[in-house]
Amino acid sequence: MSTASSPSERRLSTGLNATAAASKARLRVWLRILKVSRMIERELRERLRMGFDTTLPRFDVMAALYRAEEGLNMSELSGVLRVSNGNVTGIVDRLVVDGLIVRVPVEGDRRAMIVQLTKKGRAHFSELAEAHESWVNELLRSVDASEAEKLIGQLGAIGSRLDRLKAAEE
Amino acid sequence: MSTASSPSERRLSTGLNATAAASKARLRVWLRILKVSRMIERELRERLRMGFDTTLPRFDVMAALYRAEEGLNMSELSGVLRVSNGNVTGIVDRLVVDGLIVRVPVEGDRRAMIVQLTKKGRAHFSELAEAHESWVNELLRSVDASEAEKLIGQLGAIGSRLDRLKAAEE
Repeated sequence: MSTASSPSERRLSTGLNATAAASKARLRVWLRILKVSRMIERELRERLRMGFDTTLPRFDVMAALYRAEEGLNMSELSGVLRVSNGNVTGIVDRLVVDGLIVRVPVEGDRRAMIVQLTKKGRAHFSELAEAHESWVNELLRSVDASEAEKLIGQLGAIGSRLDRLKAAEE
Repeated sequence: MSTASSPSERRLSTGLNATAAASKARLRVWLRILKVSRMIERELRERLRMGFDTTLPRFDVMAALYRAEEGLNMSELSGVLRVSNGNVTGIVDRLVVDGLIVRVPVEGDRRAMIVQLTKKGRAHFSELAEAHESWVNELLRSVDASEAEKLIGQLGAIGSRLDRLKAAEE
């Protein structure tokens, strides 16, 4: 590189370096998010299997139904599972057999069915959710309360921007 | 709740509330990490497919081989893929057919083979890696450089603790 570069050339070069450094830093942020996410997810899958003989997609379906007291239809459940790569029909069939959920007809639409947690299902999910929260609490023990709030804000901003990008694409 | 609780009862209750609040905050941190991670991963998978007709497990294998110039054996490659759920043998076979990697015998061990990127493979991966970084840079645009450094530190601390927990289990 020339030592006789003009001030404007130097400013340009500094700007480019800062841009390149920010890009590398964002890449490292992503690699850390990915690593932490995969490690925690693997740990939670393992503990759900060992402790409750269940899976993360089953947990996700029950969590969605727990929040939606009036129930969800199959396409809403597919949306829930789109991200965890589960096969909704298979999972719902098994949960019905296990007595944890029921299919109920929709009033006024003879062909439509919605899925709801049974009383047994609600009790079972409460237990799962409590264990799940305690595992996460243990795995993230290094994050204190004020740091957690900061992370929630930072990750929330990233998530909102991704939601907007996604919405703009669709 | 009684308004006539003693100061020590109130301190205990405040302590329990703080513990419960920290636990809920850590759960929210985890749900945000999971959401962001799944959204970015889905976006990267989609762009690798559309732009380069390739997959994330193929990208991960090539990335590992790009860093290990002397090559890796199959068990080292399995370690790389343990997290991205790829089938190593199938992926390696396809990359060989595509001329992007080669299997070479290990000197002094007739049965052992290591896998290396070909010249074509290195050139292809450079192109992929550049696109990958630019996508991540775009998806994480809301994170400025100083915020990125903070996140790298926070997520790094979480990751290190998970590494130690994992090591203690094994």
